[in-house]
Amino acid sequence: MPDLRKDPIVDRWVIISTERGKRPQDYSGVAPKNSGGFCPFCYGNEAKTPPEVYCLRPKDTSPDSPGWRVRVVPNKFPALKIEGDLDRVGEGLFDKMNGVGAHEVIIESPDHEKPLELLPVSGIEDCLRAYQQRMLDLKKDTRFRYILIFKNHGEAAGATLEHSHSQLIALPIVPELISEEIAGARRHFNYKERCIFCDIIAQERGSAERVVLENDSFIALCPYAPRFPFETWILPKYHSSNFEMDANGHFGLAADILKQVLMRIKIALDSPPYNFALHSAPFQGDHGAYFHWHIEVMPKITKMAGFEQGTGFYINPVPPEEAAEILRSVPIPPEE
Amino acid sequence: MPDLRKDPIVDRWVIISTERGKRPQDYSGVAPKNSGGFCPFCYGNEAKTPPEVYCLRPKDTSPDSPGWRVRVVPNKFPALKIEGDLDRVGEGLFDKMNGVGAHEVIIESPDHEKPLELLPVSGIEDCLRAYQQRMLDLKKDTRFRYILIFKNHGEAAGATLEHSHSQLIALPIVPELISEEIAGARRHFNYKERCIFCDIIAQERGSAERVVLENDSFIALCPYAPRFPFETWILPKYHSSNFEMDANGHFGLAADILKQVLMRIKIALDSPPYNFALHSAPFQGDHGAYFHWHIEVMPKITKMAGFEQGTGFYINPVPPEEAAEILRSVPIPPEE
Repeated sequence: MPDLRKDPIVDRWVIISTERGKRPQDYSGVAPKNSGGFCPFCYGNEAKTPPEVYCLRPKDTSPDSPGWRVRVVPNKFPALKIEGDLDRVGEGLFDKMNGVGAHEVIIESPDHEKPLELLPVSGIEDCLRAYQQRMLDLKKDTRFRYILIFKNHGEAAGATLEHSHSQLIALPIVPELISEEIAGARRHFNYKERCIFCDIIAQERGSAERVVLENDSFIALCPYAPRFPFETWILPKYHSSNFEMDANGHFGLAADILKQVLMRIKIALDSPPYNFALHSAPFQGDHGAYFHWHIEVMPKITKMAGFEQGTGFYINPVPPEEAAEILRSVPIPPEE
Repeated sequence: MPDLRKDPIVDRWVIISTERGKRPQDYSGVAPKNSGGFCPFCYGNEAKTPPEVYCLRPKDTSPDSPGWRVRVVPNKFPALKIEGDLDRVGEGLFDKMNGVGAHEVIIESPDHEKPLELLPVSGIEDCLRAYQQRMLDLKKDTRFRYILIFKNHGEAAGATLEHSHSQLIALPIVPELISEEIAGARRHFNYKERCIFCDIIAQERGSAERVVLENDSFIALCPYAPRFPFETWILPKYHSSNFEMDANGHFGLAADILKQVLMRIKIALDSPPYNFALHSAPFQGDHGAYFHWHIEVMPKITKMAGFEQGTGFYINPVPPEEAAEILRSVPIPPEE
């Protein structure tokens, strides 16, 4: 069973795997790469993954058979285990609990060759709907406090299989950055009785210099103090704290802007590796008035000097005004 | 002039360079690589760097000429500018100030081929002394609140020149992780009237399972909740909040344990890229009772999935007990 351990000084939990007996050279990740052209995410190989937990497929097809559009399966090499109690214990100054959680893979399309941004808007909408349904299902489990949804695209961004997929991790703790966002947003709300994200959107729409694009319901912008070059956030223009509670009607427009942002990054920066993470309010506590769900997209075009991880201090060589201008002016080819 | 910008939601400052007019493809770092075998850090090329600000050299040699053992020069491509006022301004919700600061390079030895860990202990002690002297000098400048000293070793860890060097950045703000450590250490002190780092050292010496090695004054251990595989911290066993105020007499033993730790990581993990960062108390405020300076060494052996940066949530496949055991049992070759 993996451990969840808390740093005794700062408010940070980490998952520590306890899979022992490896040599130091083996510590390179949790899942193997595609080997010999075999891909467990392609049609016909459904039996090579754990059984599906959610799927968008025609009614006349059976579970774990071809024909699906989006398929969600448990990760074969999970960072956390779904069974068991949390069993919180102290060890002197230290705190830990069992590494209980869900770790699932969202296979975004049956097409091995197509990255997410090349799917039609309806295909991306299917993925967002899959995120939502899995969140709604897993939040019934009272052991969990947060569901992290993220995507690693490209080897340098941590992807270990090339067939396009995203990941879901349900956690009994709230990740550090989300806790900090909650605390900052609450501070602003206590003082002004307004959502800070709504305030930021209003200010950014006023000056427009960091806005990448908008549609009827969403805005994409380069944040004022980005950690990474071309970091881009996608936010609903209406106030909404929890992605999974959002009305389905909006997901088409969310898919539309996500596709636009990823396509512009791909074209402007020559298909860079990237990550995105969905930030949504934790399940426990009443954060509805001041948190605002959003997706943070982080292209990986510079080598991150490790000291940034060791200090939380970032040097970003690209001003967000310049990044937004470049992304705005990308010519988007017409759909095939 | 670069900007220092504060995220409006979480307590994080970033440096935003304002060097405009680059193409997107150019955004790969701040300094060029060694080209054509020329190295500005080797003997004879002293004129190719800005003039030295500190140097350990025989009395009969002139500044910016060969003969030195350790040489500190301003970074030719600084992330911050030394001249100017902070000029704090608000832009609606946002806060910024001028990117005022010092950015220096500590050239650790004249030998182009020798990484830090292969220098004799006295050579590493010279480097620590150089860190100290530069900190003492720069802290006289009241614009600065923190001096970050760190090392990027290997291209994957962000090093852009192969000749062994470390870096110093003097900042008008305190980096986020240091602020969090200060807050956590203060919380513990307010409750228990003890330094949490001293308490951790006492507990770790009791069980010994995460201790890598000790000498008379220092301990090296793998922390209980490490973010990275083989992450190792070096701490004085006596209480001391500020590296730069520490008695010179201890630096020989600090150099000894730093060399040991880096050598063990090099041998156990086949010369991996690594970073280290010195954590010391900020200059302003009275943190003497509860902060405890230390060096955090972070080997880079796994590809970091970018979501970890985007969420502050880490998955570490190597338990620190196992890492410490491996590092303890490395056979260290005798000195040349």
